[in-house]
Amino acid sequence: MTATALTGAMFLGSKRVAGDGTEVRAIDPRTGEQLEPTYRQGDASHVEYAARLAAEAFGVYRETTPEQRASFLDRIADNIDALGDTLVDRVVRETGIVEPRVRGEMARTTNQLRLFARVVREGSWAGARIDPALPDRMPLPRPDLRQRKVPLGPVVVFGASNFPLAFSVAGGDTAAALAAGCPVIVKAHNAHPGVSELVAGAIADAVATSGLPEGVFSMIFGSGSGVGIGLVSDPRVKAVGFTGSRQAGLSLMAAAASRPVPIPVYAEMSSINPVFLMPGALAADAEGLAAAYVASLTVGVGQLCTNPGLVFAVDGPDLDRFLEAAGAAVTQSPALPMLNPGIQRSYTEGVARLQDLPTVTEVGAGGVDEAIAAPGQAHVFATSVTDFSAEPAMREEVFGSSSLVVRLGDAGDFAAAAGDLEGQLTATVHAAPSDYAAAAGLVPALEDKVGRIIFNGWPTGVEVSHAMVHGGPFPATSDGRSTSVGTLAIERFLRPVAYQDLPAELLPPVLAAGNPLGAWRLVDGELTRG
Amino acid sequence: MTATALTGAMFLGSKRVAGDGTEVRAIDPRTGEQLEPTYRQGDASHVEYAARLAAEAFGVYRETTPEQRASFLDRIADNIDALGDTLVDRVVRETGIVEPRVRGEMARTTNQLRLFARVVREGSWAGARIDPALPDRMPLPRPDLRQRKVPLGPVVVFGASNFPLAFSVAGGDTAAALAAGCPVIVKAHNAHPGVSELVAGAIADAVATSGLPEGVFSMIFGSGSGVGIGLVSDPRVKAVGFTGSRQAGLSLMAAAASRPVPIPVYAEMSSINPVFLMPGALAADAEGLAAAYVASLTVGVGQLCTNPGLVFAVDGPDLDRFLEAAGAAVTQSPALPMLNPGIQRSYTEGVARLQDLPTVTEVGAGGVDEAIAAPGQAHVFATSVTDFSAEPAMREEVFGSSSLVVRLGDAGDFAAAAGDLEGQLTATVHAAPSDYAAAAGLVPALEDKVGRIIFNGWPTGVEVSHAMVHGGPFPATSDGRSTSVGTLAIERFLRPVAYQDLPAELLPPVLAAGNPLGAWRLVDGELTRG
Repeated sequence: MTATALTGAMFLGSKRVAGDGTEVRAIDPRTGEQLEPTYRQGDASHVEYAARLAAEAFGVYRETTPEQRASFLDRIADNIDALGDTLVDRVVRETGIVEPRVRGEMARTTNQLRLFARVVREGSWAGARIDPALPDRMPLPRPDLRQRKVPLGPVVVFGASNFPLAFSVAGGDTAAALAAGCPVIVKAHNAHPGVSELVAGAIADAVATSGLPEGVFSMIFGSGSGVGIGLVSDPRVKAVGFTGSRQAGLSLMAAAASRPVPIPVYAEMSSINPVFLMPGALAADAEGLAAAYVASLTVGVGQLCTNPGLVFAVDGPDLDRFLEAAGAAVTQSPALPMLNPGIQRSYTEGVARLQDLPTVTEVGAGGVDEAIAAPGQAHVFATSVTDFSAEPAMREEVFGSSSLVVRLGDAGDFAAAAGDLEGQLTATVHAAPSDYAAAAGLVPALEDKVGRIIFNGWPTGVEVSHAMVHGGPFPATSDGRSTSVGTLAIERFLRPVAYQDLPAELLPPVLAAGNPLGAWRLVDGELTRG
Repeated sequence: MTATALTGAMFLGSKRVAGDGTEVRAIDPRTGEQLEPTYRQGDASHVEYAARLAAEAFGVYRETTPEQRASFLDRIADNIDALGDTLVDRVVRETGIVEPRVRGEMARTTNQLRLFARVVREGSWAGARIDPALPDRMPLPRPDLRQRKVPLGPVVVFGASNFPLAFSVAGGDTAAALAAGCPVIVKAHNAHPGVSELVAGAIADAVATSGLPEGVFSMIFGSGSGVGIGLVSDPRVKAVGFTGSRQAGLSLMAAAASRPVPIPVYAEMSSINPVFLMPGALAADAEGLAAAYVASLTVGVGQLCTNPGLVFAVDGPDLDRFLEAAGAAVTQSPALPMLNPGIQRSYTEGVARLQDLPTVTEVGAGGVDEAIAAPGQAHVFATSVTDFSAEPAMREEVFGSSSLVVRLGDAGDFAAAAGDLEGQLTATVHAAPSDYAAAAGLVPALEDKVGRIIFNGWPTGVEVSHAMVHGGPFPATSDGRSTSVGTLAIERFLRPVAYQDLPAELLPPVLAAGNPLGAWRLVDGELTRG
């Protein structure tokens, strides 16, 4: 059974250890109340110990069978489910996220673990390839060559503030790394320490129950610049997963690149998720689009990585209707608690920077509520494309329910606007059939800039599935060749190894004769499960 | 028809343009003769022009059909074949590589282009994934999600000195990038400018004959620090392929990481390719292993990335027999011209560093030949594991036919020796059945360190096939998640994009209903070609 009592501890393998550094206290953003218990940051000795345990565990964990790893992932999911209301209540108290969203995120998190369990069992993730020997080939024989993917080694995962379950201790990066065969050390986010302890307990219990070495999982509290950089710099750590601010992500990238042996960093950093309202779609339903836009903008108090922070549309009566309706809708949106006072402060400053620009007008603002300790007030702004082009501050992410509508001169400006953007997680196009010809020209420009292109929908809501890409070119992420959501994420923690003329006795099962694992394999260039 | 006359020019798209910088002259390393014509380095204006052409061409080239790209690759191969003896003769003169090896490398290069053509036609490289919509799913419907891989954009490829065809202008990185849909700008290697011009002409002709925009291919001469860094720093360049020295590779990595928008660098840098002679195998045939070892060591005058530069074996009578036979064999190996005087100088210095170490003994040295301008003399050295551990200089690559045999105390030292190594392209194990149990313990340590594990063979000879991995952890390469040889190499120049609810009219063919390209696709988690 996973413990449900909070002890204020970190997890170094199977041991609960209290840090002795700076105090870490969760704050209920609804009330400002400091929550019990007190946590404390770890230090270099905890980093050293967790890294040693992880490196030791890797030797055993990498050799586990797919079924062992899959059962372990399922068990983590079961343990999280078993935490039930205890976990839901703690998330609500530490983050202010409303209960239905917490329950949804909890289901997403356990579904994600179970999805990776299925991926591991299915076996194609190993990328098996076999080129049989051609002993009679002239002028030289071909050796027997086999390829599979192997895990990189211990992975450090940084918990994110805005998804205390799905992008945190047992979130997507942890699930993908464990699925790949990599031990995980989590640098927990200081804003939800109790949630982190509960989920870490669920994982640690699954490690023990599964008979795995304790170093498969550890969790440490600490600062990004201390424990965080310490973990990224440890020679036993082989990859990093991170979701957070651009500044923090850049510092992790720099630390990883300056190691004697550089390692991959998968940092998701910032995105303003442009929306392109094409003329036909805008003319057809300006009011409906405005309502859906404000709903997407305000969901999760705007604290989603895919929040629609930027809208492009051609100036004119249809856009005026859209703005009028959006202004009305945003005015109706109540103030809700943001995740924590620090995020609320940053958001308020970002909004003030936009309000202070003479070239920006405020279309509408949501409600205020002084009873909330860290209230988030929604804002919709507007500007012209000329002013937008001239003011770099308008392209900066304001994390929260703030969005800027840019009035374009004509429909020919869409592609230019897309081309001028930095890398993004998503781009959204609203297009009626009459817009498709123009949209076809816009799609390649968007492919260069984003990881996901959405038509006639909204970017918030990230499906955990096989075809999802939650990634994108820099600075949306540090490595646009990857995704942090969906089953393709397992590849971030793998690398290929070829085996030439290995004796049959030594071949890993996924490459063995007769395909004992039943995985898809590329044999002499043909995919087969035979 | 591809031109066979040398003009001393670079290729900026379809235009032959002479550089106006430092003179670039090939030297026949057999005779020291300076070869005509004179080439000159390009400058920043050539970088700017080539990058602009490539960026313009990308918009068209990325949208070509698989068949168009495949036919283009086939045409490049045909054009290179058509150069025939003109090309072979020029390679021999510019590099001193013996004619049979040149013909072999030429066949490998054209086979490689045709292999990538087949890969492009087959279609699975696009990594198509489709998660159909589930409109009735509760609590939320699932949108239609489709994923494919798209090309990164213009790629810069650095020609290597030691494979003037297979790792140069139309080598593996060029073939993989063009297959992926990326325009290529080659920074030609200054040691084989005539070969580079001939092959560039073959590609430029194929670009024109295929009706592609000229910017799909350019080639510039220049220094690494000037034109090279200039290309890597250009904002329109999206990835880099490089094979060469560690110092040069590290400088490219640093330049790419310090761009406002960092890009992937695939640099193959250095490898000493350890060989583990296990006791049973050594006892069974010490003399046969020694002969094969010296043959692998001296092929290509030792100038292969997979040259066996380091051998581990347990001290004792069997190793004495091996060393005696290796010493005799290396003494019989004639001096042969190295690629160029610069490489010969570095090699001689590296050998002298080993000879100056009091803890290294010379087992044998090959012939000398003062009639050769840049002769390469083979060397086999030996040392003890204690001395090896104490002297970092013994782990440095000496590019050429120099190898060091390390005497281990006992068979338990193999895994420790493997664990102490830097990342390598290959590791080779010679094992009799009586060694398999020990070898099974060694394999995981090698998986952590290398890209390819060879049993009972030799690392030289790199098959171009589906299962090959020519890569490995840093510093063997800058990115151990990739390979520079074999069909998996196409993935280095691709990234995934997801499409959510795209209208059928706008879907790329590989994701369209009915699977018009007949590619393997992951539909709802199941691979299918239907």
